[in-house]
Amino acid sequence: MLSSASLEWTDLDRKAVDVVRALAMDAVEKAGNGHPGTAMSLAPAAYLLFQRVLRHDPSDPTWVGRDRFVLSAGHSSLTLYIQLYLSGYGLTLDDLKGLRQWGSLTPGHPEYGHTIGVETTTGPLGQGLGNAVGMAMAARRERGLFDPDAAPGTSPFDHMIWCIASEGDIEEGISHEVSSIAGHQKLGNLAVIFDSNHISIEDDTQIALSEDIVKRYEAYGWHVQEVDWTVTGEYHEDVQALYAAMEAARAETDRPSFIRLRTVIGWPAPKKRNTGKIHGSALGADEVAATKKLLGMDPEKSFDVSDEILTHVRQVVERGRALRAEWDKGFQAWREGAAERVELFDRMRHRRLPDGWDKALPSFEIGTSVATRKASGEVLSALAPVLPELWGGSADLAESNNTTMKGEPSFIPDEYQTKEFPGNRYGRTLHFGIREHGMGAILNGIALHDGTRPYGGTFLVFSDYMRPSVRLAALMKLPVTYVWTHDSIGLGEDGPTHQPVEHLWALRAIPGLDVVRPADANETAAAWKTILDNNNRPAGLALTRQNVPVYEGTGDPDKVAKGGYVLRDASDGQPRVVLIGTGSEVQLAVEARDALEAQGIPTRVVSMPCVEWFRAQEPAYRQSVIPPSVPARVAVEAGIGLGWREFVGDDGEVLSLEHFGASAPYKTIFEQFGLTAERVVAAAKASL
Amino acid sequence: MLSSASLEWTDLDRKAVDVVRALAMDAVEKAGNGHPGTAMSLAPAAYLLFQRVLRHDPSDPTWVGRDRFVLSAGHSSLTLYIQLYLSGYGLTLDDLKGLRQWGSLTPGHPEYGHTIGVETTTGPLGQGLGNAVGMAMAARRERGLFDPDAAPGTSPFDHMIWCIASEGDIEEGISHEVSSIAGHQKLGNLAVIFDSNHISIEDDTQIALSEDIVKRYEAYGWHVQEVDWTVTGEYHEDVQALYAAMEAARAETDRPSFIRLRTVIGWPAPKKRNTGKIHGSALGADEVAATKKLLGMDPEKSFDVSDEILTHVRQVVERGRALRAEWDKGFQAWREGAAERVELFDRMRHRRLPDGWDKALPSFEIGTSVATRKASGEVLSALAPVLPELWGGSADLAESNNTTMKGEPSFIPDEYQTKEFPGNRYGRTLHFGIREHGMGAILNGIALHDGTRPYGGTFLVFSDYMRPSVRLAALMKLPVTYVWTHDSIGLGEDGPTHQPVEHLWALRAIPGLDVVRPADANETAAAWKTILDNNNRPAGLALTRQNVPVYEGTGDPDKVAKGGYVLRDASDGQPRVVLIGTGSEVQLAVEARDALEAQGIPTRVVSMPCVEWFRAQEPAYRQSVIPPSVPARVAVEAGIGLGWREFVGDDGEVLSLEHFGASAPYKTIFEQFGLTAERVVAAAKASL
Repeated sequence: MLSSASLEWTDLDRKAVDVVRALAMDAVEKAGNGHPGTAMSLAPAAYLLFQRVLRHDPSDPTWVGRDRFVLSAGHSSLTLYIQLYLSGYGLTLDDLKGLRQWGSLTPGHPEYGHTIGVETTTGPLGQGLGNAVGMAMAARRERGLFDPDAAPGTSPFDHMIWCIASEGDIEEGISHEVSSIAGHQKLGNLAVIFDSNHISIEDDTQIALSEDIVKRYEAYGWHVQEVDWTVTGEYHEDVQALYAAMEAARAETDRPSFIRLRTVIGWPAPKKRNTGKIHGSALGADEVAATKKLLGMDPEKSFDVSDEILTHVRQVVERGRALRAEWDKGFQAWREGAAERVELFDRMRHRRLPDGWDKALPSFEIGTSVATRKASGEVLSALAPVLPELWGGSADLAESNNTTMKGEPSFIPDEYQTKEFPGNRYGRTLHFGIREHGMGAILNGIALHDGTRPYGGTFLVFSDYMRPSVRLAALMKLPVTYVWTHDSIGLGEDGPTHQPVEHLWALRAIPGLDVVRPADANETAAAWKTILDNNNRPAGLALTRQNVPVYEGTGDPDKVAKGGYVLRDASDGQPRVVLIGTGSEVQLAVEARDALEAQGIPTRVVSMPCVEWFRAQEPAYRQSVIPPSVPARVAVEAGIGLGWREFVGDDGEVLSLEHFGASAPYKTIFEQFGLTAERVVAAAKASL
Repeated sequence: MLSSASLEWTDLDRKAVDVVRALAMDAVEKAGNGHPGTAMSLAPAAYLLFQRVLRHDPSDPTWVGRDRFVLSAGHSSLTLYIQLYLSGYGLTLDDLKGLRQWGSLTPGHPEYGHTIGVETTTGPLGQGLGNAVGMAMAARRERGLFDPDAAPGTSPFDHMIWCIASEGDIEEGISHEVSSIAGHQKLGNLAVIFDSNHISIEDDTQIALSEDIVKRYEAYGWHVQEVDWTVTGEYHEDVQALYAAMEAARAETDRPSFIRLRTVIGWPAPKKRNTGKIHGSALGADEVAATKKLLGMDPEKSFDVSDEILTHVRQVVERGRALRAEWDKGFQAWREGAAERVELFDRMRHRRLPDGWDKALPSFEIGTSVATRKASGEVLSALAPVLPELWGGSADLAESNNTTMKGEPSFIPDEYQTKEFPGNRYGRTLHFGIREHGMGAILNGIALHDGTRPYGGTFLVFSDYMRPSVRLAALMKLPVTYVWTHDSIGLGEDGPTHQPVEHLWALRAIPGLDVVRPADANETAAAWKTILDNNNRPAGLALTRQNVPVYEGTGDPDKVAKGGYVLRDASDGQPRVVLIGTGSEVQLAVEARDALEAQGIPTRVVSMPCVEWFRAQEPAYRQSVIPPSVPARVAVEAGIGLGWREFVGDDGEVLSLEHFGASAPYKTIFEQFGLTAERVVAAAKASL
């Protein structure tokens, strides 16, 4: 579709690139702070990408067939903003002047959902690289759903993911996890341009970095190329060589591509190039002027873009429309094919679930005893046929997390399938290996790419390993679901390193994340319903390892969706005490209620699977569940009590665990640490 | 000191190794669950290490001159426990029978401080590898403090760090960070035995792992060797080859060593070897019996260790005493040298600070305006000469975190020092690169090794990246200090990806971690005093980017050590309302107090730099600061309010930030998000 003929690179292009550098200096100078250096030295690369390489249509930033661009080096947001402005995405010179100011479209780091053309929020290093890997995986899965039989390169669902990464990105551990996965998955639709400028905030990276990065990426099985603009001794921005490498990356369809591009940061600023200062500070008026002079520009002018340049660069809009028009032919032809796939596509474009999908949800027999992780696994298997967009896996804990949909193939190159996990490149079960952080960033990338609904599992305690990615899912409002099992000391023998204690409240602390801890199997199924109905926020399920009783009254999705509800009311309907429990501790509350009622104390039990959902209810509902007129309240949860005071009030009691766990069979631990129905009863009496 | 002659390996050794395998099976069988597979197949390697390679003295587990052993693959705790039993560390057969039971010395994963001979708590994968790297760095730094001029290999402070790592360890991102640092630091005193068994919980690792691990470690600059026990097609436990590799690793002093040891997990269990099942489950009685038969053992017997075997293996105690005695000669000779170094050594052995050290703490002029991160930097520089044990650095944010002690050299191989950071191999300033997680695990390793006091810095928001290591520091009670700067939306223009909002409470959630957020420069100095006086728990300082006023009354270390204290009392000593603030928001409370007093409302301001320290005070003190008789209270903090209800009570108000931040100059953000003195005044009135 795109010509790979040799690149035409005119004087106007050269001038436009210099305009990019000047805009980067000017924007940071005006803000008084920011990151000009990389935006200056990457100007030729970014311009080349947006003008000649990326398949995109600035007049339709959400075009399904577009190549995705991820700026993993998010601090260099100007690298992206300036191209969005030049390419005609609607960003203006005024927006650039508003860099890093309140309410502007040009915040310090690119923010998804805030600025048109920004495909993901980046800044925390390494995350963008992981998002790009996720996008590349999603692209393959989506092609498998929509157009599996098309010859390579002929489907409207074939496109590339481009990523610019910095030294900071590849130093982060997450870069290892996601790059290893990308190599293993043979993501030929992924190309990373690694800006190797040997400068980070502590100046010369030699102080902390000497690994052979190229060799490392070869070890991951990537297609690796080097373009060194310093190789001659004179700095030469060899755009032709970079273009050739980019085209070779596109041509390589069986491996992800890594292009090491050696640049000099802040080029050509006479004094500050190649320094740590230009990475993260304004150049200062003198250096800006000196640089502009060097570029043959008027040092008196700032934010200066001539009509000639603008007209030249905006031709990319026409290029985009043409690409789009050509693509549309193939797309329309595809739409005339299998109706079921087209319907799925249209549905997924709007993240709309099929009518009645929830009828497939299983229910569990009251009175039996089932681990909620197991119930969750049955939910996933039951949903497999009705929700093709739902897919996921685990960070090497599939059987423990119950994340595998029964009978579904793994998402894996044929040659890597195993006896335990047969699969193919379009498969559904994800295998992240022991790489929780990478899993988190990849899930974000999958959710960002298009309408599939990804989930990923690990032990709740290891949510810590993926926390930076979870935070970004919340910030970006991505519908990612975490299946966090073994959610308390109920994990038992593996001991304190594996027992979450602080995690429930530490996760509830993240704005925009729903932490859902169902009481039993039916509440688990109902929770999945609400989680999947929500298409604009992440949720984490906290699920038991151990069996818990299946109660009457937990399976009403409308009640569960409210986050907290009356599971057992006082026998006379006039509670003297309210017991609030979550997850496996709801059974302690239920047992305690029976004891309290037997002692003549009317007692209500509230199951509160999701504090966030409950908080979102009207005060009237909340007060109907936890009446202000009943000050005697107890919250019980096998973890720290941190946030429960808000619910139980000054007169209430919190039965919690304020220290780390221990290694032993789980019943012993609950007993030894006093998480028992007797203690709930005692707390209830104390609060009366 | 140790012979590198060829290894003598008798029939008794072979039998002893089989006993190890049998004990591993028996212990897991008795517990009903656990991880037998690796303990079985690594039996020869672990036995070889403890019997012939490690320089250790089981009769003195804290011998300074010992080699350290780190089991990064902590799930295979039996690998360690069985050697501790056989070597005579005091662990008994009964202890092995108590595996994973309440109160036993043999919890599911090895726990530092719980079982003698366990050098670090492992289980969360990758952490042990990071600890080992930290120990190797600490060993070099300590040698530099105590004995810098001794020829290589001749100092009592020369020893090795040995580590066993698994596929899970090297898949984790943290392995990348710490291995890259280890290569860069040329840690010749570190050797990692990588147990490559191609099995993890999801069975064949091929489902998620195909990177060329050997090549990857070469890329990090490690000395890499391969020992493949499957190479002949028949499984042959070539102990001689492994021994040769270990000795070569010891001989290599300029690079860390990586020995890839190819094993078959669960060897020689006839049915379950080489399966995911044997990784993490009991074998079952039949398979145990079949394996014992294969080994020529009585399948009816369990926990069977003959006197002959025990006598044989316990010879290692004598070996240890002899090594120790020889070492003592050199050590005593060293003690007769420079008195100052000996005094430092003796002091550090007990983590005792020198008398009057705190006199070196700086004080700041009342009425000036200083960022608390800057004050912290001045504290560190002032302490440099009096506390040689104090050292640390940053994850590429030295200048932002103010973590560099003025004029101190970097800890770096000579060839990697830079213009900005001159240094040497015994230097003091650490450069972690953009590797927060690795930093966390390395700090733990440093603190575990001996008496130095390490600190490490990054932005508070990126505490998320290092959280799993912070948790382990708290679990192990290690005196590590985190310098977390840019501690709120006060960070300003970098925006929501860089602004902590949920982090203060999410960190306070971790049991055993002190989160310290000083109000001003003098409170910062006082906080450092308490932090360093505590030698058995980690602390994280949350410090401002922006300047904050220096108040009267913040510099009393005794008050600050209480965690919360009355900074300004009501003018008549009878407060009608109590305002509680932390960090930069104390100034809002002080301003609000002035306004409230002016309106005739007697108002007290409480500065609460550390909730944990405050909670540890007697109720009488706490009530004297926040009187129960004054229900009108306001807590103000630029982050989520989560835990403040506990302090303000039902009638109080919490002025907080329940959503993500934004990119803008910081004063604008505080204003726009309503974190102002006016809002504190309004909240105070509302609570009256």
